[in-house]
Amino acid sequence: MRILILGGDGYLGWPQALYLSKQGHEVAVFDNLARRQFDLKHGFDSLIPIQTIQRRIERWNQLTGSKQITHYHGDTTDYNMLSRAFQEFQPEALVHFAEQRAAPYSMIDREHAVYTQYTNVIGTLNVLYAIKDFAPTCHLVKLGTMGEYGTPNIDIEEGFIEINHKGRKDVLPFPKQPGSFYHLSKVHDSHNIMFCCRIWGLRSTDLNQGVVYGPGTYETALDSDLATRFDYDQIYGTALNRFCVQAAIGHPLTVYGRGGQTRGYINIKDTVRCIELAILSEPKQGEFRVFNQITESFSVNDLAERVQRVGSQMGLNVTLDSVPNPRVELEEHYYNAVHTKLLDLGLQPHLLDDDEVERMISLTLEHQNRIDPRLIMPTVNWRKADNVVERTAETAMNHR
Amino acid sequence: MRILILGGDGYLGWPQALYLSKQGHEVAVFDNLARRQFDLKHGFDSLIPIQTIQRRIERWNQLTGSKQITHYHGDTTDYNMLSRAFQEFQPEALVHFAEQRAAPYSMIDREHAVYTQYTNVIGTLNVLYAIKDFAPTCHLVKLGTMGEYGTPNIDIEEGFIEINHKGRKDVLPFPKQPGSFYHLSKVHDSHNIMFCCRIWGLRSTDLNQGVVYGPGTYETALDSDLATRFDYDQIYGTALNRFCVQAAIGHPLTVYGRGGQTRGYINIKDTVRCIELAILSEPKQGEFRVFNQITESFSVNDLAERVQRVGSQMGLNVTLDSVPNPRVELEEHYYNAVHTKLLDLGLQPHLLDDDEVERMISLTLEHQNRIDPRLIMPTVNWRKADNVVERTAETAMNHR
Repeated sequence: MRILILGGDGYLGWPQALYLSKQGHEVAVFDNLARRQFDLKHGFDSLIPIQTIQRRIERWNQLTGSKQITHYHGDTTDYNMLSRAFQEFQPEALVHFAEQRAAPYSMIDREHAVYTQYTNVIGTLNVLYAIKDFAPTCHLVKLGTMGEYGTPNIDIEEGFIEINHKGRKDVLPFPKQPGSFYHLSKVHDSHNIMFCCRIWGLRSTDLNQGVVYGPGTYETALDSDLATRFDYDQIYGTALNRFCVQAAIGHPLTVYGRGGQTRGYINIKDTVRCIELAILSEPKQGEFRVFNQITESFSVNDLAERVQRVGSQMGLNVTLDSVPNPRVELEEHYYNAVHTKLLDLGLQPHLLDDDEVERMISLTLEHQNRIDPRLIMPTVNWRKADNVVERTAETAMNHR
Repeated sequence: MRILILGGDGYLGWPQALYLSKQGHEVAVFDNLARRQFDLKHGFDSLIPIQTIQRRIERWNQLTGSKQITHYHGDTTDYNMLSRAFQEFQPEALVHFAEQRAAPYSMIDREHAVYTQYTNVIGTLNVLYAIKDFAPTCHLVKLGTMGEYGTPNIDIEEGFIEINHKGRKDVLPFPKQPGSFYHLSKVHDSHNIMFCCRIWGLRSTDLNQGVVYGPGTYETALDSDLATRFDYDQIYGTALNRFCVQAAIGHPLTVYGRGGQTRGYINIKDTVRCIELAILSEPKQGEFRVFNQITESFSVNDLAERVQRVGSQMGLNVTLDSVPNPRVELEEHYYNAVHTKLLDLGLQPHLLDDDEVERMISLTLEHQNRIDPRLIMPTVNWRKADNVVERTAETAMNHR
C-alpha cells in the first residue's frame, strides 16, 4: 500500500516510516523539520544523536539493500506543497503526525499558542481538503491524544458515549476537557475530521494516543544512523524520560505537584504496530472511528517510584522531590480509560516493566555526556501568558 | 460600564451598540468591516440601506444630543490593533461578535474554510490573551451558536450535561456536533474560552444563540440612518428573510429538502436585551457559563407555511417549492433545547407572531426595487469542496 507519513521525521514519524517500509509498504515522508528547528533556536538537543532525514533514508536503503523511502520537504499549512505530494505519491493511506506536539510549547505565550492552533488546525484542514481533492478514498490515520478527554469522573470511552437523558438516548461524541492549547488543537482537529467524514464521505481513524515512551523500535535499533530522538527537556520531554535522565545524573526526580496525575501510556513499539493495525482494518467510506491508543495507565508517582527502585538496583542514588506544578490540572482524580479496540484488532502490548526502565536508564548513562541539566526544569507556567523558554540552573524553578 | 463591542458594525453588533449606549453605558465598537467588503466584492447588498459606520455614529450622537460611541477600525487577528483598543478603552465588559458568521461562506471552498477558522479561532485566541494581558477582570460575552450542538436525539442542555455512566457521574460539556466549518469554529472557540477561564481565572458567558430574525430594534427604528442590515442572499440570509423576500417578488418559497430542519430562533430585540442581561449578571472570576439564547423553535416548514399564510392575507400569491438541500443535515429529527437561564434573569421574549411576519413582508415590499433575485438561490453545496459564489438566474440551482 502507498502510505504517506506527514511528520515522518519526528520521534514517532520516523520509526513509523521504517516499520511500514519493512512490512513491504511503499512509504513517503513529508516534514517541515520544525521539531529540529526548535532545538537549533533554543540550544536543545535529543539525548540520542540523530541523523539528518536524508542520511537516515540512505542508511535504511543501504541496510535493507533495496527499500526506498520518498522524501518531501513540506509544510501542511502550505497547500501547494501538500498538493504536490498528494498528486505525485497518490497515497492510499495517510498517517498524520505533522503537528506541533508539545503542551508546554503551546503554553509559552500568545505567539506559541497561535502557532500551535494555526499549524495544527489549519494544517489538518488542508490535509482534509487534499484528501477530498486528490485522494478521496485515502484512509486518514490521525494522531490525536488521550489528553483530549481530560480527567472526567466517569470512564473514558473510545471516542463516543451512549447518553441516557430524560428518557431518551443517543450515542454522542465523548465530551472533551483538554488541558493546554496543544490538547485543544487536537480536539478541534477531531471535530473537523468527524465533520468531513460526514459531509464528504472521507474515512478516518482518530487515534487518541497516550504518552509514548521507549527509546526506539526494532528497526531504529538496527543501526545508530536509524535512531529516533529521545527528549528529556522541559518542552518535549515526558515524565518518564525526565526521571531516567535525572536518575542518571544524580538529580532528585522532579514530581510536579502531588504526582497523582494519571495518564494512559504506550510503548513506541506498540505505537508503530497500532498504526499498522489501523491501516489494515480500513473504516468504511464516511466512517469516523476513534481508538484509544494506550496499553496501561500510571500516575506520575508510579513512574517516579519505579525509576527510583530500578535505579537503586543499578547502584544509583535516586531521590524524589516534589516541585510546584507548572500546569493547571487535577493532581488526584479518577482515571479509567477503555482501550479494547486495538487489542481486538490483534495488538499484543509491550507493557512497561523494570527491564524496560533499566534499558532507558542505561541509555541515559551511556549518553550522559550529552545531558544538559539546564534544559530540564520547567519555565513555562500555565498560569502566565508570557513565559520564556530559558535554560535554567538545575534547581531554579519558576515559582510564580 | 465601559463595554467594547467587537464586530460592532454588523447586523447584531450595531443595534447592540445603540442599545447599550441608550442604557447609559460607555460604548466602543471595533470592526474590520469584513461583512461590507464581501458585499463589495460579490455585488451583494443589504435589502435595507445602511450608512457608513462613521455616519451611523454621528447620527446617534445628533439624535441623542450627547451620546458618544468610540470607533476602532481593527481586526482581531491583528494583536497590535486589538491591544491598542484594550489599552485605550479599558473595557469592563466585552461583547464579541467579530467573527465570520455564515455557514455557507465557510463551505465555499478551502480558502473560505481556512479564512473562517483562522479569523474566528485565532481572533478569539487573541481576544483571550488581550483580556489576560490588559483587562483580566473584564467579562467576555461571546456569541456562540445553537448550531454547536447539532441535532442530538436527546434534549439540548445549556452548555453542560450530567452524565451517569457505569455507576459514576460527572457534569461535562455537552457533546457538540456542528454542521459547517463555521459552526465548528464556534465549537473550537468555546473549548478555548472554557480553558482560559480555568487556567487564568477569566470569566465568560458563552451565548449559544439561535437564528436571529427581525429588521431591527427600537433604537435602529429611530432614524433611517441608524438602520441595521437585512440580508436575504444565499450566503448571509436566513430562511425567514429569504421567504419574506420571495413572497414579495412572487417567487415560490424555496424550502431546502423536506423542511423538517428545526432550530431555535430569537427576535433581534431579544438578542440585545439578552446580552445586557448577561453583562449585568456577571460570572465569578474563573467561571465559564453557557446560555442558550433562543426563545422558541421552528422547523423550516413552520416558517414557510407562516409566510405563506400571512402573505396570502396580504393579497400576495405565495407558493412553496422544495429544492435540493445544499447542506448535509437531518431533515427530520428530534429537537428540544432547554433555554431557561436568560428567562430566569428576566428576559421577556418577543415571540414570532403574524404581525412580525407582516412587518417583515411589508418591509421587503417597501424595498422591492432593491431586491436582486440572483442572490437568493444557493450555489454553495456542502458535498463539494470547490464551490463558487455566483449570482444565478432565479431558478438555477446547483443540483450536483
